[in-house]
Amino acid sequence: MHAHPRNKVRRVAQRGHYDQASIHAILDAGWIAHVSFADGGGQPFVIPMLYVREGDVLYLHGSIASRLLKSLGEGIDTCLCVTLIDGMVLARSHFHHSMNYRSVVAFGKAVAVADTSEKAAILVRFVDAMLPGRAAEARPADDNEINATALLRVQIEDASAKVRNGGPKDDPADRALPIWSGVIPLALSSGEPIAADDATPGLALPDSVRKFSARWSRQLGGS
Amino acid sequence: MHAHPRNKVRRVAQRGHYDQASIHAILDAGWIAHVSFADGGGQPFVIPMLYVREGDVLYLHGSIASRLLKSLGEGIDTCLCVTLIDGMVLARSHFHHSMNYRSVVAFGKAVAVADTSEKAAILVRFVDAMLPGRAAEARPADDNEINATALLRVQIEDASAKVRNGGPKDDPADRALPIWSGVIPLALSSGEPIAADDATPGLALPDSVRKFSARWSRQLGGS
Repeated sequence: MHAHPRNKVRRVAQRGHYDQASIHAILDAGWIAHVSFADGGGQPFVIPMLYVREGDVLYLHGSIASRLLKSLGEGIDTCLCVTLIDGMVLARSHFHHSMNYRSVVAFGKAVAVADTSEKAAILVRFVDAMLPGRAAEARPADDNEINATALLRVQIEDASAKVRNGGPKDDPADRALPIWSGVIPLALSSGEPIAADDATPGLALPDSVRKFSARWSRQLGGS
Repeated sequence: MHAHPRNKVRRVAQRGHYDQASIHAILDAGWIAHVSFADGGGQPFVIPMLYVREGDVLYLHGSIASRLLKSLGEGIDTCLCVTLIDGMVLARSHFHHSMNYRSVVAFGKAVAVADTSEKAAILVRFVDAMLPGRAAEARPADDNEINATALLRVQIEDASAKVRNGGPKDDPADRALPIWSGVIPLALSSGEPIAADDATPGLALPDSVRKFSARWSRQLGGS
């Protein structure tokens, strides 16, 4: 993927990344994409959607009855953004306060996936993309469920990543001020799992849940 | 705010909320809005931006040199979305896996704020919206810094909130399956504050940082 006019990061250019590895790593770390499109009159819309990545394809899914998915699936232009918040950047001056984040903006056309076997294979990926290992633990979708799910395929045409990390960049003239400066790391972290009201009694937490909880507690402490 | 055709939540209608209190509470709990707009040719764009809410106005800010902020500030239609992830919903079937979340979609026109005193007042709000109490601890912006910041004002014309919470909704036929079902709560949480490389030596953590860390650890355990 290259820097075309549509995706060129013009502000703070050193934060822009166009290499595939940076873009894929951010997409693979997120769950929700904000998907934008415009209607015929130029009215923009943006909605949050779950996604999975396969190479340079992003799959989006939702209910077959969704008017937005119907519009989206007709091959219209979309722009998707995935943003991960990594921290608050606290400078000595208001002006240099910032957030640490990783984001990807990707452009492509959304088309509905009609092929049932492609849908079935990708819907399994959605379960594991949410929680690795979960697909093997739960009951797979049957044909009715697959037919009731709309799946969109967006081949990424252009994409760019933007990353801010590290500490605040205070003006040299402010360094003498007795004001604490630094970063508060932020990460999405998991709490204690809560069994469903109608949970089958006597079941231990499954491997997927135990592994996730362990990984996501560590991640917060370590970054 | 009412349910107009533009903002009507058609899918899973019981998840839709149009009352101002629900919408404001979600907006006030987020930091980043995904802001979408279309160019003259109908090409959509979506970018993440920090925001603050004042009544039914959302303010967005960025650098004065940003091409996107320049386009946005000319009074074009925008659609903004704020999404907060609250948990993973693990059902016995793949099909009923879901996320718990709160989101708001808002529509309005973005216009640049030219008045310096309005800008100064709102920029202070951005610092406190990121970290309550921080504005009083750090050096306020001077005139050069205020002039170097572009501020956009979006009067919300329509908005709707969408919320999913609670446990999985398994099909009755699946209840006999020996598969763990429940929720993994998720929340953005803070790690240990990290002083800047050039931090003034010997400063204690400020009140804003200590209060935030206490609140955001509790929140994860409690929700």
